[in-house]
Amino acid sequence: MVVVMQEGASEPQVQAVIDRLVGMGFDIHRSTGVRHTVLGAVGAKIDFDVRDIEVLKGVAEVLRISAPYKLASRAFRPQGTIVKVGPPGREVEIGGQEVIMMAGPCSVESLDQIQRSAEIVASCGARLLRGGAFKPRTSPYSFQGLGEEGLRYLREAADRCGLLVVSEVMDSGDLAMMLRYVDLLQVGARNMQNYNLLRGLGKVDKPVLLKRGTAATIEELLLSAEYIMAGGNYQIVLCERGIRTFESYTRNTLDISAIPVVKKLSHLPIIADPSHGTGRRDKVAPMARAAVAAGADGLLIEVHPSPDTALSDGAQSLAPDQFTALMKELRMIAPAVGRTLP
Amino acid sequence: MVVVMQEGASEPQVQAVIDRLVGMGFDIHRSTGVRHTVLGAVGAKIDFDVRDIEVLKGVAEVLRISAPYKLASRAFRPQGTIVKVGPPGREVEIGGQEVIMMAGPCSVESLDQIQRSAEIVASCGARLLRGGAFKPRTSPYSFQGLGEEGLRYLREAADRCGLLVVSEVMDSGDLAMMLRYVDLLQVGARNMQNYNLLRGLGKVDKPVLLKRGTAATIEELLLSAEYIMAGGNYQIVLCERGIRTFESYTRNTLDISAIPVVKKLSHLPIIADPSHGTGRRDKVAPMARAAVAAGADGLLIEVHPSPDTALSDGAQSLAPDQFTALMKELRMIAPAVGRTLP
Amino acid sequence: MVVVMQEGASEPQVQAVIDRLVGMGFDIHRSTGVRHTVLGAVGAKIDFDVRDIEVLKGVAEVLRISAPYKLASRAFRPQGTIVKVGPPGREVEIGGQEVIMMAGPCSVESLDQIQRSAEIVASCGARLLRGGAFKPRTSPYSFQGLGEEGLRYLREAADRCGLLVVSEVMDSGDLAMMLRYVDLLQVGARNMQNYNLLRGLGKVDKPVLLKRGTAATIEELLLSAEYIMAGGNYQIVLCERGIRTFESYTRNTLDISAIPVVKKLSHLPIIADPSHGTGRRDKVAPMARAAVAAGADGLLIEVHPSPDTALSDGAQSLAPDQFTALMKELRMIAPAVGRTLP
Amino acid sequence: MVVVMQEGASEPQVQAVIDRLVGMGFDIHRSTGVRHTVLGAVGAKIDFDVRDIEVLKGVAEVLRISAPYKLASRAFRPQGTIVKVGPPGREVEIGGQEVIMMAGPCSVESLDQIQRSAEIVASCGARLLRGGAFKPRTSPYSFQGLGEEGLRYLREAADRCGLLVVSEVMDSGDLAMMLRYVDLLQVGARNMQNYNLLRGLGKVDKPVLLKRGTAATIEELLLSAEYIMAGGNYQIVLCERGIRTFESYTRNTLDISAIPVVKKLSHLPIIADPSHGTGRRDKVAPMARAAVAAGADGLLIEVHPSPDTALSDGAQSLAPDQFTALMKELRMIAPAVGRTLP
Repeated sequence: MVVVMQEGASEPQVQAVIDRLVGMGFDIHRSTGVRHTVLGAVGAKIDFDVRDIEVLKGVAEVLRISAPYKLASRAFRPQGTIVKVGPPGREVEIGGQEVIMMAGPCSVESLDQIQRSAEIVASCGARLLRGGAFKPRTSPYSFQGLGEEGLRYLREAADRCGLLVVSEVMDSGDLAMMLRYVDLLQVGARNMQNYNLLRGLGKVDKPVLLKRGTAATIEELLLSAEYIMAGGNYQIVLCERGIRTFESYTRNTLDISAIPVVKKLSHLPIIADPSHGTGRRDKVAPMARAAVAAGADGLLIEVHPSPDTALSDGAQSLAPDQFTALMKELRMIAPAVGRTLP
Repeated sequence: MVVVMQEGASEPQVQAVIDRLVGMGFDIHRSTGVRHTVLGAVGAKIDFDVRDIEVLKGVAEVLRISAPYKLASRAFRPQGTIVKVGPPGREVEIGGQEVIMMAGPCSVESLDQIQRSAEIVASCGARLLRGGAFKPRTSPYSFQGLGEEGLRYLREAADRCGLLVVSEVMDSGDLAMMLRYVDLLQVGARNMQNYNLLRGLGKVDKPVLLKRGTAATIEELLLSAEYIMAGGNYQIVLCERGIRTFESYTRNTLDISAIPVVKKLSHLPIIADPSHGTGRRDKVAPMARAAVAAGADGLLIEVHPSPDTALSDGAQSLAPDQFTALMKELRMIAPAVGRTLP
Repeated sequence: MVVVMQEGASEPQVQAVIDRLVGMGFDIHRSTGVRHTVLGAVGAKIDFDVRDIEVLKGVAEVLRISAPYKLASRAFRPQGTIVKVGPPGREVEIGGQEVIMMAGPCSVESLDQIQRSAEIVASCGARLLRGGAFKPRTSPYSFQGLGEEGLRYLREAADRCGLLVVSEVMDSGDLAMMLRYVDLLQVGARNMQNYNLLRGLGKVDKPVLLKRGTAATIEELLLSAEYIMAGGNYQIVLCERGIRTFESYTRNTLDISAIPVVKKLSHLPIIADPSHGTGRRDKVAPMARAAVAAGADGLLIEVHPSPDTALSDGAQSLAPDQFTALMKELRMIAPAVGRTLP
Repeated sequence: MVVVMQEGASEPQVQAVIDRLVGMGFDIHRSTGVRHTVLGAVGAKIDFDVRDIEVLKGVAEVLRISAPYKLASRAFRPQGTIVKVGPPGREVEIGGQEVIMMAGPCSVESLDQIQRSAEIVASCGARLLRGGAFKPRTSPYSFQGLGEEGLRYLREAADRCGLLVVSEVMDSGDLAMMLRYVDLLQVGARNMQNYNLLRGLGKVDKPVLLKRGTAATIEELLLSAEYIMAGGNYQIVLCERGIRTFESYTRNTLDISAIPVVKKLSHLPIIADPSHGTGRRDKVAPMARAAVAAGADGLLIEVHPSPDTALSDGAQSLAPDQFTALMKELRMIAPAVGRTLP
């Protein structure tokens, strides 16, 4: 931490700040300039609140030197992390050479619907089948998902088509049950700071797909990853899915720049969800192409055999032919960023 | 719902939209203008996704007529709701004549600390004692609260000083235990869309304090209230505590205008939390005064006997003398909006 | 400026940063810690781009110590500035004891309309008459104002009622003409960064009312004030009028916390414009009360003798009886913050 | 316009709304449902303020049917517009098959610097040379540009290398002079709503590059284009250059989704400026690739022969070898969206 004292800060004020910092476990380097005294504070533990120093008398500004996370930082694993999903022998690697496609409907509605979805996305080159069984819906009157029955359908359809399964877990109490069906455990944007859930996932031996909240900074996303990693589970894939801005034409603003920023700050892979990021079917393909061109390690895309009759989010789901056309475009873009796509 | 067709939309396109609307349970009123055909759709259930119509061919725009919530809307109880907190005989009314003050430290740290806090805030006119026992912290390395022990201290200190207790519940699994200690169950901003928790609170016979998420619109706040009410619990107090904007000098931007807006849209009382809304001690008093002047039914304020040594959020906690001075100012402002303050 | 080098930054990298800083005119204090080298750089001129250092190899973070403005900073005049508006003998002081009310219609529409407006607002205690003659309208097809004729009407009506005149200047080319009619020159939110206009105002001997842009940070507002002050004109009143956020129920979000923040960072007075800040008539009074309670030095409010027939912004204009009622409330609030209101 | 009356609105209230609408020139279609009366209003001129109706008694909601712009809307020219820049025989087409590259330094600093820049960008395939002669700087103490001398250098360098010239005009008073040097007149983000400037550009016979303001919605961008078109100049290229959000790691958030949205709403071409959109050199290439993949008609990129010594914005300028590498990547991406790049 670097503490800049105000011009004219008194010696007792400087001393009070030093005492407080020493009390927090820091070693202090003092540098007295013509106008400002600057204190460098190093060596304490990672957890402190810079505001505790900011409010002291005579303090002008405080700067954290180190990031508030460490396990999630690029410095922890400079070479980058490849997250392996699926059972031995059928593993898919996220963060490697291939851009990994995860696709399927918003919700599992029936065995037939998810089976047809699986066939479509598998034939196009997807590796994981997505589908919600527990749905976080803004209205209490909306379809809330099929629950465990949906997970059974999802697993069955995925297995038949050689796909792996990604699905959202909404409550730490559901974790044990979900582990029986799911290969990649998704944390939704609304739960990015559900700390009980994050702690639960830290003790699990399966990879996690952690979505950025619509009001979360990139730093907060990495802090949520740190929660899981602090529990011992390092297998995390991050996901950009749109942030809230004043522009209301699109449901959210997909922050494509988060992709290269995360690549610099962290060793964890990052994918994008252009379906939730835009909320409109005709914007999904352009934003999917943009995400791959910016360096995303994969995409999460809603595809429905018949979007107009979907029980949820049909408006942002691609029809099968639209997904086929998109995959063709992505195969042309991937080599420009040194990646492959099946 | 009103559906505006594009100029030049074909008759089969119009018919397809009508068929879809009828299938959703709507009665249709068709109005054919010189350039636009407009369809009025009434009578269906409250839960539908306007985007399902927006993506149909030939549709220009779609407008919901009714709000997506009904139990939380002003029309449901035009006279307004007064939420009663506490056991019979010691009840405090939120939404009535008095501006209700809830104050205390961010976290319960010890019996002594919470006892001293209780004495201070009670002597100044507060009705409820606040204090966190389960803390949602952005860093996994931060103090996470004393848990049930903290609740015991909180209850004991409140009872001695004639105060009621408000404290945050983070997980639906903790509800049964918390009911033994807490009079007003707080849902934090990060959990505003934790639907399992909201459903759990819908079945409880105690009032709930529901905080607005930092990226939540006012409509979404009311939809979260609707979740709880749909379960049968109508005793809800809303709380504005700051939204995220591009301005970074303050931690959040306390949206004071949310107070009169909620008063118009809903019958539920609304209070403000200027401590979290600003994140800085010297901004708490001005924003507390502003909230009361704008019509808030109460305030939630962090007060600590010794803010500089607080284990969490000391930077935004008032010292006892600052709280005393603030209460004096608020007593002058309350009559300007037809309210009282003890 | 404080420069924090990355862990493991090489000695040549540190030396390259030092050379660059010396080349920019800084004196360097070097502090070598266990993990980080920290460079304190002091003494150069106020204008530099921290990003020039941020992009150098081995640099982790850079912090400005001093604000990028100096004339506008609180340190320049710790006692605060009182801006005097109007000719000698009729001067009104902004930033003093009295909360100064500026009121009138959005646009000057006719001599009769502005005359009636002047009578209403003068009788309620306003000191300045507002009214637009040159209107910045988002649509090229909207009423663009009466131009110089409007200014003549405004001056005439103000003089008859003992009021001073505030009106918006949109172009540096109009300045000379406007000086004949206007006592306080308003810079609109859209022109906050029209640097030609700001430079023009720096050479004028009349006070300026500078509005915050809807996407401007408080720091940028103060930098725009610095432009005017750098030209020699120190008579500036700042105005908060709403920032753009994701909440769309209100046109903008009036950032009430900007009032205490500006009071801390700068010596310049600050007022609020709740009419533009909310865009809806029924939200003007609550936000006006909130602004005074938070410490605003004045208010700018749209009042129209007959809002329903206004040529512009009628939806956010108060009717005469609403303005009278508001003034009554404000007179009760002002003493709570040590202010007066006539 | 569609007006939805509140449940229980009285007949006189409905009649008052109808009278007001008729007074504004609308034809009314009335539709009386079980709970709501809905009024369809068609046929008036494009300029009206929906809020004038919203504030009437008994009104629940008001929806514009038609966009507030017409010349800029896709319906006006469904086939799209190709903007031709440059003198006959040397014309470059923006909005056609080729992705048009505009590159060069932030500011013109000397003839030598701009000459070397021109050679670099021309050899890589750029069509236009960019360079600022009048710089809008947030600090009054920053380098403000070389003025007309800079334009002379820019023209000379461009002509030698077979490039066209794009440069920013900051004031309507400078227009006549600038026309002698510049092929494409840039309106900066801060001037997007400088209506005097927009009106001046409406009377000019050269194409305009209109940048989106950092707080402007896409609708407001199109309304600013409408200002220019209403004056008679239809040759407009739009530019996305980043909006302001709560994420502060990047200077702005480049809204890539604005590209497909503008393509749908308008017939005007749209390009992206990843240099200003990110503010950091290492984020320029990923965002440039993303913009092309999303369908941008061109890019505006800062390239400097020696970025570390640039007088302005060096931190976001590419070095020559970085620009060469980027062009190679873009040539691989363009075919995926049916475009070419030289």
